[in-house]
Amino acid sequence: MEQLVTSNADRNSAPHRVVIVGGGFGGLYAAKALGRSKQIEITLIDKRNFHLFQPLLYQVATGKLAPGDISSPLRAILSHYRNVKVLMDEVIDIKPEQHQVVLPTRTLPYDTLIVATGVSHHYFGQDQWAEVAPGLKTVEDAIEMRRRIFRAFEFAEKETDPEKRQAWLTFVVVGAGPTGVELAGALGDLAHHALKHDFRSIDTRETRIFLLEGVDRVLPPYPPDLSAVAAKSLEDLGVTVQTQSLVTGITEDAVTVRQGEQTETIPTKTVLWAAGVRASGMGKVLAERAGATLDRVGRVIVNPDLSVPGQPDIFVVGDLANYAHQGDQPLPGIAPVAMQEGAYVAKLIRRRLRGQEPLPFHYSNVGSLAVIGQNAAVVNLGWLKLSGFIAWLIWVFAHIYYLIEFDNKLIVMIQWFWNYFSRKGGSRLITQEEVTLVHSE
Amino acid sequence: MEQLVTSNADRNSAPHRVVIVGGGFGGLYAAKALGRSKQIEITLIDKRNFHLFQPLLYQVATGKLAPGDISSPLRAILSHYRNVKVLMDEVIDIKPEQHQVVLPTRTLPYDTLIVATGVSHHYFGQDQWAEVAPGLKTVEDAIEMRRRIFRAFEFAEKETDPEKRQAWLTFVVVGAGPTGVELAGALGDLAHHALKHDFRSIDTRETRIFLLEGVDRVLPPYPPDLSAVAAKSLEDLGVTVQTQSLVTGITEDAVTVRQGEQTETIPTKTVLWAAGVRASGMGKVLAERAGATLDRVGRVIVNPDLSVPGQPDIFVVGDLANYAHQGDQPLPGIAPVAMQEGAYVAKLIRRRLRGQEPLPFHYSNVGSLAVIGQNAAVVNLGWLKLSGFIAWLIWVFAHIYYLIEFDNKLIVMIQWFWNYFSRKGGSRLITQEEVTLVHSE
Repeated sequence: MEQLVTSNADRNSAPHRVVIVGGGFGGLYAAKALGRSKQIEITLIDKRNFHLFQPLLYQVATGKLAPGDISSPLRAILSHYRNVKVLMDEVIDIKPEQHQVVLPTRTLPYDTLIVATGVSHHYFGQDQWAEVAPGLKTVEDAIEMRRRIFRAFEFAEKETDPEKRQAWLTFVVVGAGPTGVELAGALGDLAHHALKHDFRSIDTRETRIFLLEGVDRVLPPYPPDLSAVAAKSLEDLGVTVQTQSLVTGITEDAVTVRQGEQTETIPTKTVLWAAGVRASGMGKVLAERAGATLDRVGRVIVNPDLSVPGQPDIFVVGDLANYAHQGDQPLPGIAPVAMQEGAYVAKLIRRRLRGQEPLPFHYSNVGSLAVIGQNAAVVNLGWLKLSGFIAWLIWVFAHIYYLIEFDNKLIVMIQWFWNYFSRKGGSRLITQEEVTLVHSE
Repeated sequence: MEQLVTSNADRNSAPHRVVIVGGGFGGLYAAKALGRSKQIEITLIDKRNFHLFQPLLYQVATGKLAPGDISSPLRAILSHYRNVKVLMDEVIDIKPEQHQVVLPTRTLPYDTLIVATGVSHHYFGQDQWAEVAPGLKTVEDAIEMRRRIFRAFEFAEKETDPEKRQAWLTFVVVGAGPTGVELAGALGDLAHHALKHDFRSIDTRETRIFLLEGVDRVLPPYPPDLSAVAAKSLEDLGVTVQTQSLVTGITEDAVTVRQGEQTETIPTKTVLWAAGVRASGMGKVLAERAGATLDRVGRVIVNPDLSVPGQPDIFVVGDLANYAHQGDQPLPGIAPVAMQEGAYVAKLIRRRLRGQEPLPFHYSNVGSLAVIGQNAAVVNLGWLKLSGFIAWLIWVFAHIYYLIEFDNKLIVMIQWFWNYFSRKGGSRLITQEEVTLVHSE
């Protein structure tokens, strides 16, 4: 089905050069799987020097973990693969005809290119909201959220005007997907447990947390009964869940919401954005240079083997890929999908080099998990739906299992045990008065 | 000797109001010691929401610990003292006659004031050096240093011009006091151990590290034989120690050094400043408003009981105080001095309220410690001088002992054990392309 574009001469004389753009789950798993093949030379390019365990980013935003706990230097993870070279750099263009990627100061040749640059936030055309409602994709985003959340309690403590104090003690989370649910739950935990003894002029249990969702339930990708359980758990933590609510305005002082015919204004100083994603800029580059077709949010529609149609040497993995060959919907933008896609492409490249036929990609569903505060989570394994404490335990162990591959596992586990028994956050620093929001690709 | 300025009426009717400015070691230990007295009401004011364990800041700067590992929220540390109120705010002025401190939006009355705002860097009148040679006093400083250090290795890896690559692989530390020695040692550890397998185009063991000191030996406050041992340990880690060297210029590309008659230019992209401190702005405020006398670097010369001469209700503790009533020199600006001073003033206030005579302050010397890379340190207990591995073990346990009082101890200990056996840093993130240097006070 595919053509072997690498000539036999190349294959025998020089190593096969794979360039991977992006060191998230997709890129990293591809690099690790290829690192074992001596006849392959891999260059992994990322704008940052570290891999970020994004599923736990909301714990940094809410002061439970430190940024370093969920980040590992890409070099350290890959240092024992002598055929993997890590470059902290940016790919600004690609030239498929010449088999080259373009960096700001030079070009790099490739035989196979893997693009894994992921997605960033999307404000549905209201880019000015980015200023007042930060999203959660990078470490800087998380530090900025953490700064805003803890600053709000500090300002409430100092404020003597009851209305203004109320606004400081009101948090609005936009979007009730997994990130929004996890953020709202963690805020509830903070207000009702971790911080309840820390203030003298305010009672943090009076904090109002709104979780706004456009469709009719939280966690829309989950089965309706799990959504209902999640909504109930959130309400137990003091979160007001408002579904079928469209945000029509966000300012420094309020959020405007339309629910059916009604429009409501919620005075608040802290809005957290968890509503939408848009593909990274590499999607557009692939469309312009390699003729890729993009979906509504800019993701690249890929072949059953994850290559770009018409470009057998260019693969897209992870959140940037729209893989619609399994199930009714494209595969979701979650870590296990990216990992499996990265590992699959690595295997495909190795098979090609051996002259073997590629096997089609098949995502093996490991389930989806979302956590709602301490002791509560929902787990959907397809054949099994769970909620409550057992689901929470599964969530904890699943994350520790994945973190095993990086050097942070032990620290995170201990921090969690400590947090669990003390119900205190471990990393509640307010740093940087002004943080520029730096988004990954 | 002192007058009881708090009237008996006050003492019997209302709680005695103590305002503490600054949540470092001095302020925090005063708050903790006062927190046990029910008839005292304490307000601790700090611009930041966390206490910082500054002696380990160099480990954040060199990627061994995360900022959260050495910081604890002041509220969390003090939450069980119901008579302690924490305010994240800034004192911009004081009015000793009215017994008030002035915050940006209001004033606060006090019966006793404890000023513990510490010191910041000092560039000897060359303030433009701050841009190119960051100091190390705040978490932001440490993150900025970390960014520059790890960025330098990344740029060296990418650089093809050998001269420019050399400049990226050259680090200059200015000042060989404890901070400078610890930074230089940690850089040597990084270059020769932690990073040695991580790069493909450079050999990090070729890194050049210069430690420049104006006087004739490293660690000038220590006995000369310990200085010699420290210099030897540094050289074993590949550090070039240059004493009697005065820095005459720092640019983005080089440091100019004068050694006797000779002037040398060291091409480097990374300069770390550990050379001098200047008292925080509260020193000047105390001079203007309360008639305090300042020393050469702006510290407040205090009475034997740590009060400001002529102001029996205003005390200065920690690095901001110049306490010259014990030994030939003022007490050094180290954590144990600040802790003991804070605790002493708390005790003095309690004695005053009971109508007892104050006892004079006496610093009980717990020794000084400096660490030079892994397994090497120098310890000066006065009656005992130690160096090498035993000194390093004492250093480790002394720091863990002090961290016990905060909730970070366990995490830091485990992180250290992990770092020790893996020789890898735990937190090597390069965040924020541009970080504004925010100095404390």
